[in-house]
Amino acid sequence: MTRRTREAIARLRARFAEKLCTTDAVREHHSTGVTAHRTFAPDAVLFAGATEDVVDAVRICHEYRCPVIPFGTGTSTEGQISAEQGGLTIDLSGMNRILRVSVDDQDCTVQAGVTRKALNASLRDTGLFFPVDPGADASLGGMAATRASGTNAVRYGTMREVVMSVSVVLADGQVIETGTRARKSSAGYDLTRLFVGSEGTLGVITEVSLRLAPVPQRIAAAACAFPTVRAAVAAVVAALQSGIPLARAELLDALQVDACNRYSRLDLAVSPTLFLEFHGTDRSVDEQIALTSEIASEFESGEFRWATATEERTRLWQARHDIWWAALSLRPGSRGMPTDVCVPISSLPDVIVQAQQDVAELGLVAPLCGHIGDGNFHLCVLLDPADRDEQARIEQLNARLIARAHTVGGTCTGEHGIGVGKMRYLPDERGAGMATLAALKRALDPRNIMNPGKILQVDAYPAYG
Amino acid sequence: MTRRTREAIARLRARFAEKLCTTDAVREHHSTGVTAHRTFAPDAVLFAGATEDVVDAVRICHEYRCPVIPFGTGTSTEGQISAEQGGLTIDLSGMNRILRVSVDDQDCTVQAGVTRKALNASLRDTGLFFPVDPGADASLGGMAATRASGTNAVRYGTMREVVMSVSVVLADGQVIETGTRARKSSAGYDLTRLFVGSEGTLGVITEVSLRLAPVPQRIAAAACAFPTVRAAVAAVVAALQSGIPLARAELLDALQVDACNRYSRLDLAVSPTLFLEFHGTDRSVDEQIALTSEIASEFESGEFRWATATEERTRLWQARHDIWWAALSLRPGSRGMPTDVCVPISSLPDVIVQAQQDVAELGLVAPLCGHIGDGNFHLCVLLDPADRDEQARIEQLNARLIARAHTVGGTCTGEHGIGVGKMRYLPDERGAGMATLAALKRALDPRNIMNPGKILQVDAYPAYG
Repeated sequence: MTRRTREAIARLRARFAEKLCTTDAVREHHSTGVTAHRTFAPDAVLFAGATEDVVDAVRICHEYRCPVIPFGTGTSTEGQISAEQGGLTIDLSGMNRILRVSVDDQDCTVQAGVTRKALNASLRDTGLFFPVDPGADASLGGMAATRASGTNAVRYGTMREVVMSVSVVLADGQVIETGTRARKSSAGYDLTRLFVGSEGTLGVITEVSLRLAPVPQRIAAAACAFPTVRAAVAAVVAALQSGIPLARAELLDALQVDACNRYSRLDLAVSPTLFLEFHGTDRSVDEQIALTSEIASEFESGEFRWATATEERTRLWQARHDIWWAALSLRPGSRGMPTDVCVPISSLPDVIVQAQQDVAELGLVAPLCGHIGDGNFHLCVLLDPADRDEQARIEQLNARLIARAHTVGGTCTGEHGIGVGKMRYLPDERGAGMATLAALKRALDPRNIMNPGKILQVDAYPAYG
Repeated sequence: MTRRTREAIARLRARFAEKLCTTDAVREHHSTGVTAHRTFAPDAVLFAGATEDVVDAVRICHEYRCPVIPFGTGTSTEGQISAEQGGLTIDLSGMNRILRVSVDDQDCTVQAGVTRKALNASLRDTGLFFPVDPGADASLGGMAATRASGTNAVRYGTMREVVMSVSVVLADGQVIETGTRARKSSAGYDLTRLFVGSEGTLGVITEVSLRLAPVPQRIAAAACAFPTVRAAVAAVVAALQSGIPLARAELLDALQVDACNRYSRLDLAVSPTLFLEFHGTDRSVDEQIALTSEIASEFESGEFRWATATEERTRLWQARHDIWWAALSLRPGSRGMPTDVCVPISSLPDVIVQAQQDVAELGLVAPLCGHIGDGNFHLCVLLDPADRDEQARIEQLNARLIARAHTVGGTCTGEHGIGVGKMRYLPDERGAGMATLAALKRALDPRNIMNPGKILQVDAYPAYG
């Protein structure tokens, strides 16, 4: 711990008393989360109860140049919560109030610690729902900070589209509201989109205003096997070109289907499989189903297995949401390292097939699932933390995969963020734009105290003259 | 002209020869456009033919601290093209090549000078179209820079949603690509959204990558009268809550309908009227129409007047797109000053009714049209450039209107931008965020040469410490 951090913590203790915690267990808990990356514990954890707590804490940290790391539920995958240089982690999970819901405007404002499931539970009687669904029950502040998405982004958008505004505590403790409640605006630089995806490196998000969607009259879900990954992707491309508003189109490869059958007690054919969901009125869903079935059969799909009853549907999508655990159960004791490239959909089949060849060649186990409609897929690469050689091969797999994604105009991360895990790949993707990222970071956080050592090493880039 | 600008122009002439123009007519033409605001002519105009031209020009201007003003079609309404401090206007209309269209990926890349109509003409046989449609046939670079939208933003999004990436020449002449061709990404700060809506103040956009949409199987359009503005808005809110994917929902007040009847030879009832459009399959459009008719009748609408044949539909929407000219024809010789507030839709009826009262009280003529689905509406306020008193009353109207928009959580501009025309209103809207805007501007354009004097006066705000 540096002298300055020690002094900052003394000041924080005087201000926050028992809201500040420095025990090993709490510090460890706040830096590990679900990630397989090596992480570092903070020197102290503040359990914030209100924006004023965050303001006071950041002001003190600013004065002493003490790092500040925001924490929601610890479910980020790229080491975003690691205290690379020590400092103060601000746990926002206690800021869990839903501040406002407007049914007529289909929007709401929540504190950053509200989770997506808690929000949806509270919306139950409004006829509205919040559509973005990453695997974990993440906090909405964290989801905004990571620019998260999930299984129905093609239809409903990602956090980039659904966040209307955020309240942010900046590096010097000032609070700004980045947007308004208007659905669109041309009033100056888009600060909302700048903070969405900034991973805590530009400020601490304390409140989030979100667009909501009307609950569809009918939801129908189906699973459908295909002879090859290529055929499954081609069917989705054809459906989207026909203007079918697919709510969800998730691909599982044969290995992942096998894992799900065992873990979630399903009996799907062990073959590349699409999990599909249709939202709309009764008639519109009927039509979407008829059109999609026709298209799928052109690509030699198997039968559609329908899950129209709510329980069946829940079971199917629970299995989809549990694929991470299903994958890990393929080799008990493993941890998982998820890849996250996103590519133009026309390149998706080739990129997937090559990735599967790499997995085989490198002797890894890595079931695949993908948000086909937007070209994003994950390999859940099984990892033995004690096996250095395996870790090296996994990094080799990821490097090859990301290089191919870049070659076809894609990105190294569709929804997980950069954190510390993908920093080495970002310069290849952003090129000369890295200096622009650094200029923005320096402009808003000249002391480099906001989640330092994430996304980019700001000192590596000169300022614009 | 400053000495430095004179030296810059000498250097530019040596580099560009006849591509550089300094005649009065050309300089005047490049600063007036359609705006009713007072504007200033640049000292020279460069007709850029390629990104390299822009790079070389910006490098020279950077060296001599000479202002750079990007120009597309001159159809911005808030004086964005005015050369407030003289300098070089870069006309990008010659950069009009469509560089790439991918049908499978439903996207394309164009040079900044391509107009929206030119793009759509070239897409005619692809089954795709570009949906964003501001009134003018604006350039896509200009539309990105202004964060433009139009009549179908509720269904298809604004430039914020459809721009995937832009190529930008930064203030020092460096070129960056802000994004990738992936549909979504969490790879670092969202530079694309930062440049979309930056109105030329952070760099010159030279290329734009855009998402396209599949042409719907069927399009049906209708006009429908309502007893009041309030009833018309309530019907649209109810339709959106029912999940009806309205493609367009445009409100015209009685005065605007009257103007359209005369200008476009229609015979609509002179009453608040919705122009509606439905996109989808045959069956889905039938269902949308049935549901919307039912909802509209609950709000005492008149009959739907259908325009299903292409010519009829074109005539109806041509009338909608011509409302600006229809409005001006109410008082020949007038210019028009468009207001542009955007508010939460639940507040829209009150804000409209109060605005109409203000118009009457201030003795102005101002027909109204609105993009109801997203809460954005325009008064086309008729203006006699020789009448100072009228101009003062118009500014009073706009000030009251914007103050009310701010009170209900809205924005002073939904789609026209700030330019010089709305600078005085921005601090009320952005509050402490103004310093953040200034910090970003200074970080990317430390010499303040990119379209200076627009959006904000950067020197009014201190740097973050």
